[in-house]
Amino acid sequence: MAIKKLVGQNLKRFREAAEMFQEVLAFECDLRRTYISGVERGIRNPTVVVLGRLAEPLGVEPWQLLAPEE
Amino acid sequence: MAIKKLVGQNLKRFREAAEMFQEVLAFECDLRRTYISGVERGIRNPTVVVLGRLAEPLGVEPWQLLAPEE
Repeated sequence: MAIKKLVGQNLKRFREAAEMFQEVLAFECDLRRTYISGVERGIRNPTVVVLGRLAEPLGVEPWQLLAPEE
Repeated sequence: MAIKKLVGQNLKRFREAAEMFQEVLAFECDLRRTYISGVERGIRNPTVVVLGRLAEPLGVEPWQLLAPEE
């Protein structure tokens, strides 16, 4: 699976597991909601620093956003 | 540890374990050697797509470049 798609699926899965709206995650990360949506749709190509910012409020480790679903 | 530093340490560790010079990895990934050196020094902020390109010739998974050393 393309890595951007994998990150998007993981981000959506962890965000929904945390019962967090995109708007809230965007606020927590100081990113735009449209950017979060773009990452979840596999369109955006986030840097490792952004991965760290996305992971933190979801209570997961950055590497988990890149890991294949068990 | 800052995420760029973690990625840099992991990249260097996996590259050396693969007994691969920076020049060879750069060629394999179609990146400049100076860029590889910048990532290893924790200066560069690679995207997930670049992480995928760096991981592949080293025979590791992209998420491993973000994981804390065991």
